[in-house]
Amino acid sequence: MNPLHRQSLAIAALARAYRRETFTPADIIGEIHRRIQARGRDGVWTALVPEQALMQRAHELADQSPEALPLYGIPFSLKDNIDAAGLDTTASCPAYAYRPARSARTVALLEAAGAILIGKNTMDQFATGLVGIRAPQHPVNSFNAEYIPGGSSSGSAVAVATGLVSFALGSDTGGSGRIPAALNNIVGLKPTPGLISTAGMVYANRSFDCVPIFALDCADAQSVFDVLAVDDPDDPYQRRQAAPSRPPLAERDFIVGVPTGEQRTFFDDDDAERCFERAIEQMVGLGARIVDVDYAPFKEAGDLLFEGPPLAERLASVGDFVRSHARQCDPVVAAIIEKASGYTAVDFVRYQYRLRELEVEVDRAFSSIDLLMVPTAATAYRIDAVRADPVRLNRHMGHYTYFANLLDLCALAVPAGLRGNGLPFGVCLLAPAGRDRALIPLGSRFQALQGLAPGAPVLQPEPV
Amino acid sequence: MNPLHRQSLAIAALARAYRRETFTPADIIGEIHRRIQARGRDGVWTALVPEQALMQRAHELADQSPEALPLYGIPFSLKDNIDAAGLDTTASCPAYAYRPARSARTVALLEAAGAILIGKNTMDQFATGLVGIRAPQHPVNSFNAEYIPGGSSSGSAVAVATGLVSFALGSDTGGSGRIPAALNNIVGLKPTPGLISTAGMVYANRSFDCVPIFALDCADAQSVFDVLAVDDPDDPYQRRQAAPSRPPLAERDFIVGVPTGEQRTFFDDDDAERCFERAIEQMVGLGARIVDVDYAPFKEAGDLLFEGPPLAERLASVGDFVRSHARQCDPVVAAIIEKASGYTAVDFVRYQYRLRELEVEVDRAFSSIDLLMVPTAATAYRIDAVRADPVRLNRHMGHYTYFANLLDLCALAVPAGLRGNGLPFGVCLLAPAGRDRALIPLGSRFQALQGLAPGAPVLQPEPV
Repeated sequence: MNPLHRQSLAIAALARAYRRETFTPADIIGEIHRRIQARGRDGVWTALVPEQALMQRAHELADQSPEALPLYGIPFSLKDNIDAAGLDTTASCPAYAYRPARSARTVALLEAAGAILIGKNTMDQFATGLVGIRAPQHPVNSFNAEYIPGGSSSGSAVAVATGLVSFALGSDTGGSGRIPAALNNIVGLKPTPGLISTAGMVYANRSFDCVPIFALDCADAQSVFDVLAVDDPDDPYQRRQAAPSRPPLAERDFIVGVPTGEQRTFFDDDDAERCFERAIEQMVGLGARIVDVDYAPFKEAGDLLFEGPPLAERLASVGDFVRSHARQCDPVVAAIIEKASGYTAVDFVRYQYRLRELEVEVDRAFSSIDLLMVPTAATAYRIDAVRADPVRLNRHMGHYTYFANLLDLCALAVPAGLRGNGLPFGVCLLAPAGRDRALIPLGSRFQALQGLAPGAPVLQPEPV
Repeated sequence: MNPLHRQSLAIAALARAYRRETFTPADIIGEIHRRIQARGRDGVWTALVPEQALMQRAHELADQSPEALPLYGIPFSLKDNIDAAGLDTTASCPAYAYRPARSARTVALLEAAGAILIGKNTMDQFATGLVGIRAPQHPVNSFNAEYIPGGSSSGSAVAVATGLVSFALGSDTGGSGRIPAALNNIVGLKPTPGLISTAGMVYANRSFDCVPIFALDCADAQSVFDVLAVDDPDDPYQRRQAAPSRPPLAERDFIVGVPTGEQRTFFDDDDAERCFERAIEQMVGLGARIVDVDYAPFKEAGDLLFEGPPLAERLASVGDFVRSHARQCDPVVAAIIEKASGYTAVDFVRYQYRLRELEVEVDRAFSSIDLLMVPTAATAYRIDAVRADPVRLNRHMGHYTYFANLLDLCALAVPAGLRGNGLPFGVCLLAPAGRDRALIPLGSRFQALQGLAPGAPVLQPEPV
């Protein structure tokens, strides 16, 4: 077999191959093209960079040294609500398409670091959903085609999980950078709100949207994070003040909060519940002290997100378009966004007041724990089940994710092995603003315990 | 003459008198009682602490050493939207009165530091106004009874200016802690939003209301600030993150921005314009380099405040009461608050987005200046003129104050001499969040140049 066909796109592996001159970026681009062709119409892509432009990019890189650029020759993709010059931005609504004059700040940073943009990925339309199938064409779960891929960054997660790119950028408002990571056995690093620029994208909730990083492992996610976590003085939602510095997480006797037993919900998925219990045991094995935390304030903040006034931010972003193009929008998405038109300014003010109070409660909770660990997704649903009950089941997917951005937390979704039905399970580590880098070493140690290569079955090593 | 009658209530002077045992707190309470009686119905007070309770407080202090408490025996008053146990809070609307179960956090801190609460002060009803006369009874300007005292913290500023208390706490949403300071020749320190607790008060715009300090001079204001600027983890609007530390203001060659000439407005008050030019010259004499700054983003942020969606915060705070008690409210105040009911959640969202963009512009402006200096008030109006044209003239008063809290700035209003008509003029020094203490030494040096004792004519030294 051609060794290119088995080449891992993990950033570290690819960087090694470039340094040893085993392969060139042009080789990798050709191989990715082959893999994409082989998969056929997989619903992952809304647009691909033309092969000629990719080859030109490869030639530009050929003049530079792999050591000089932190992401030299590393292929990546973008959720299709992030602007890339030369490609339409559609947010998975073809009628909404526009051709941006310039790339998002994040894309410019990645390209300056040597990364190669392969294309744009399918998503739940207007980033409204956690299932990944609210789009004209959509990908399926990379472990079982009858299951949802998770969303809203579905195409981005599947592209990484199936070895089509090394990493992908998504967006995360209420879990879109975590749920599809969990359902496809990869890492999703959702940064502290405002740490990574969100300039140049279609917003859902502009005031707390984040750009998460999908990668095969935590070290890869950190490589990308290091390139992106720089000031963008032009982005009004960049943090204006640094988070207070805190000591690094201890290697042992660090304190992990988990929801109290009666507050844990798996929507009758007993298998997921066992997986979470196993994850707790593994965390103890890594040196954690486990304590129960009251999940109520997290839950209440999460309930506010898709049930209340914050929907007005979606209406401010795409409401005019959705109203005038209702028939060209996903009906579930359009109904959710339209719901926001009933809220008054006073409703919005009261929601923000309540949120501030909940932040105080959550700050207090974090004063006695180093991090919170929750299941990333309580369960995973079949595509036909979600089609039959689209709003309620979508909401179940967000049970453990909705609150994070509202409460100014960072989050790292990490694979946590397989469930009995062969689908992946994941946990999410959450910490206060600015603790992003502190979560990564622990996430790496945890992922290493799983005895399972990251990504879809297609990426698993062949049995010897 | 009894020396008590000429005793200054300046904190430093009073502390010296206590240490030398010239007077006791009981003497000072008696003297304040005498001064209040002598003034008769001056509109300054909505409630006074009963003399018996004051005397009990004086006896408690008699057991303690003046050196042990930073505000030992220092008399102060509160704007009547701040809770004090045992007194009604009315916000200058008698029908709204409630008896709070406990004192505001700020009041508790002051009393623990040895200060003595004398009473509650009249204000523009529900802190809606900058004129100080939107109340059933109201004080007049301490220099000329035909002029407005400035508001909304009118009673608090007049109490300090006329020697009835050493300092007073007010509230400042759009200038209420600065305008009445300027119009009564005293200092108003409006802290960085979230630095001083706002727990336990009737809010106007809870998300950026501040508790300012009225005092005779900057050193007095700092003494009070030092007691109040401590964490209140129970106040959701306390700052969650410290401001970035910056070097202290240089003694010379510090850079003071002023609005460009064509952007300065005095509403035909040529005298005020000359006063501002004199203040600029004095600032140059103190070592400042003066540079023009574009006032447009400050102006636009200010225009948002009383002309747009932020009014919804007032509606959320007191709207239900105002609607059900319209006839017991000031009609001008009620109309302003009611105006907010037309705004949607999307309006509020868009206002917040615009504000963030303006913050970016203002951050950029402050990257090339140390502080901004503006007139505190562009002019001062007669009471009858304001009665005839209450909304437009009120708006003129806020021309140089409205923007500060929305843009997360701290501000120090300092006396700047007298105008030709004998009314005081003032300037306001503004700086980014967390620079409160940096402004104070400069404010002291500037005030010292004026050759005018602080406060009303009644406090001026007798001619020798």
